[in-house]
Amino acid sequence: MDAAEFRRHGHDVIDWIADYLENSEQYPVMSSSRPGETAALIPDHAPEESEDMSTILADFRRDILPGVTHWNHPRFFAYFPANNSAPSVLGEMLSAALGVNAMLWQTSPAATELEEKMMAWLGELIGLPYGADGSQDRFHGVIQDTASTATLCALVCAREKCTAFAVNAVGAAGLAGAGALRLYCSPEAHSSVVKGAKIAGFGSENIVLVDVDESRAMDAEDLDRRITTDLTNGLIPCCVVATVGTTGTTAIDPLERIGPVARRHGLWLHVDAALAGSAAILPEKRWILNGVEHADSFVFNPHKWLFTNFDCSAYFVKDPEHLERTMAINPDYLQTDRDREVRNFRDWGIPLGRRFRALKLWFVLRNFGARRLREKIAGHIALAEEFSGWVEAEPDWELMAPVPLNTVCFRHRPTAWSETECNERNKDLMDRVNAAGRIYLTHTTLDGRFTLRVAIGQTQTEREHVVEAWEVLREACNQ
Amino acid sequence: MDAAEFRRHGHDVIDWIADYLENSEQYPVMSSSRPGETAALIPDHAPEESEDMSTILADFRRDILPGVTHWNHPRFFAYFPANNSAPSVLGEMLSAALGVNAMLWQTSPAATELEEKMMAWLGELIGLPYGADGSQDRFHGVIQDTASTATLCALVCAREKCTAFAVNAVGAAGLAGAGALRLYCSPEAHSSVVKGAKIAGFGSENIVLVDVDESRAMDAEDLDRRITTDLTNGLIPCCVVATVGTTGTTAIDPLERIGPVARRHGLWLHVDAALAGSAAILPEKRWILNGVEHADSFVFNPHKWLFTNFDCSAYFVKDPEHLERTMAINPDYLQTDRDREVRNFRDWGIPLGRRFRALKLWFVLRNFGARRLREKIAGHIALAEEFSGWVEAEPDWELMAPVPLNTVCFRHRPTAWSETECNERNKDLMDRVNAAGRIYLTHTTLDGRFTLRVAIGQTQTEREHVVEAWEVLREACNQ
Repeated sequence: MDAAEFRRHGHDVIDWIADYLENSEQYPVMSSSRPGETAALIPDHAPEESEDMSTILADFRRDILPGVTHWNHPRFFAYFPANNSAPSVLGEMLSAALGVNAMLWQTSPAATELEEKMMAWLGELIGLPYGADGSQDRFHGVIQDTASTATLCALVCAREKCTAFAVNAVGAAGLAGAGALRLYCSPEAHSSVVKGAKIAGFGSENIVLVDVDESRAMDAEDLDRRITTDLTNGLIPCCVVATVGTTGTTAIDPLERIGPVARRHGLWLHVDAALAGSAAILPEKRWILNGVEHADSFVFNPHKWLFTNFDCSAYFVKDPEHLERTMAINPDYLQTDRDREVRNFRDWGIPLGRRFRALKLWFVLRNFGARRLREKIAGHIALAEEFSGWVEAEPDWELMAPVPLNTVCFRHRPTAWSETECNERNKDLMDRVNAAGRIYLTHTTLDGRFTLRVAIGQTQTEREHVVEAWEVLREACNQ
Repeated sequence: MDAAEFRRHGHDVIDWIADYLENSEQYPVMSSSRPGETAALIPDHAPEESEDMSTILADFRRDILPGVTHWNHPRFFAYFPANNSAPSVLGEMLSAALGVNAMLWQTSPAATELEEKMMAWLGELIGLPYGADGSQDRFHGVIQDTASTATLCALVCAREKCTAFAVNAVGAAGLAGAGALRLYCSPEAHSSVVKGAKIAGFGSENIVLVDVDESRAMDAEDLDRRITTDLTNGLIPCCVVATVGTTGTTAIDPLERIGPVARRHGLWLHVDAALAGSAAILPEKRWILNGVEHADSFVFNPHKWLFTNFDCSAYFVKDPEHLERTMAINPDYLQTDRDREVRNFRDWGIPLGRRFRALKLWFVLRNFGARRLREKIAGHIALAEEFSGWVEAEPDWELMAPVPLNTVCFRHRPTAWSETECNERNKDLMDRVNAAGRIYLTHTTLDGRFTLRVAIGQTQTEREHVVEAWEVLREACNQ
């Protein structure tokens, strides 16, 4: 395809995307595609001869689109959002076209330097102590793909700090020589914490689940007790993962109480604020990060709730030396004359190659502006509060958890139903409304109770969509 | 930004990209930006108010572009290519706009099913035994971001298989209880192998470097000896990483000799063919993968040499159960009714969230067609062969390694120069031609000798660009 053809097809694709963004409401939110249905439309072998781009784009619309679940849809209330916006798409287009690999400063100086600036912008927006000022207690940042990967980096760094780099130093015997390193988190921590611990070799028996309070937030006193018990038993406390905004109910682990415990025992404190970090751009929600100055590492995802298309995860660390000593590889073919003067982000994460993700973030932060970002986030939170009010006002519905942010946990609960019936009926309710395609929501289970979850965070979600969600749910109950 | 504005700016961006693709030759290949130069142009704080997209796009062209090293440039000969193409950019645009998270089948059925199909297409194109046919010796595939991440997955799976899942089973004590697991690779293996071993907790003293032959390919007999010695000493041989197309010189580790050794001793065999895998689409180069049927895992990067924009790494495994038992997390909130019928790729890699990368691959494979892909790759290889002929024909130049694929290692070597002088002069030569901006090449060091490297793999690279590279280098010698 030459430049002229690219221009022609590119304009067609832009028109399609503009129509899509304008009319995404008209699609069913969740795809009703059945297993194997898309696969059956795709040939088993790559074509031998070139196919025209017009044909391919037509096939995309006809064969792929029906199998797409629309994460962009204003009535997408499932999981946590992976939201998106027009400036973000424009940024991603340019990143794709440039095809830059931001592994070293030299391989595209602007990619590294814009990334440093964007992390500083984000740090300031959420009130994180950021950037070199001579003190130790400030953060430095890097963009990663997802919070899962960032959390794995944190766990590996914690492992190394705790063993004085015994795993990775030259001549080190690896984890086999390190003893039983203990990791503490609440049962509400994201599955990526357990996955990261598996990959980093902690061993499942060394994942210690700390009690939670009635709001499902970590009990710092129980944390302290469990660390002390482990010390008494000759085990090696290594790392605490606190969650600000748990996946189930957006519970907020209290950093200002957990931090001093971790610090007193010399443990690494990693804070997973994947969704909730974005809420800290609001002065009235900044409290969720109270105590974050105790953390060694912190992650939140602009791709979740800051209108930047997936993937874009903001990872902050206090002391980059842990990352660099753990991750650094320095083969001859990657050395450049500038290495002492510049930051080479290849040592700040797992993959060597890195996309130019800072560009879309720059586009989003500038095109929205901080004020509009705050308005959008505050709007989502207000809608969640309003929705929870509707639930509470109805005798047959039950609010299942506090709503500090954008996510409402609830269920349909006529008094006549047993708990078992209640679980079955709510599961059936969810399946029916999702299959109908007007809204898409998912569930969690709280103390054995099947719980519906509405997470309000899509870029295009307005009050009318939340009103409609409540209507759809109530109508479906009467069917 | 509403849909109308997106349409307007989107068309502007398309026109800019089309111009860029057409005229990328006019840019200096390597950015001449100095450290801090881009950063100084970016404000220290995010703007409070929205800025117009036209302003932002103008700033991109004025402030960012001069700091970009042009990986798309037809005279980019550095590292290995991260190449790109027009259909790939169109695919990435649509992926960005859809913003789909392909973590579960349900979260976008078409994304998972197209990914399965594309991996089958790729497997067939490079001659890999692929897909279920009842036998054990066939591969299954998943798209990952980079070969670094895929190799880490392989090392973690090897660790688990070797210890009968002692690290990750319920109640397992982690690597601390596993003993000294040994990993074997050649000194020419990519730095991601050492990095992956660090992350997975093997310990640096357990990375065993196997001898290479005169072509820098792994010596399978030495591998056998080292494994046997380790067994005698009570150590636990775990994994062999063979490289097909090393980063330094594209040496080809002989899989047909390494495979039986690994199999006899029950070791996991991971094959890193990050660049070279693409060459296996040529019948005349298929021999580089002879013996791949012995591998447990195999990775190559369509984003390197198959015209698909970064990132897109194709990871193949024989038995997905190792991945699933190692990586699987199954929290309640991610369970769906379809889980028994479908593939959930979240368990096939490190991040939970996953982009819809199959779309760009589908666009590339169809728009090029297999025949044109083979022509492009064969063309690059022929140009490398021609370039190596020019080097060999000149008495003052020296070819430093065989050229089985697209990468030529060489140096300027007048007889009067000492080895030290030769190293300094070639470093200076590289720096001067890179600073001049007509070509961009990087180096490796072979037996202490500073060696220039020309890797020919950019989508737009034609014979004239390679001719020009040779002219630029010879002219620079006379300055």
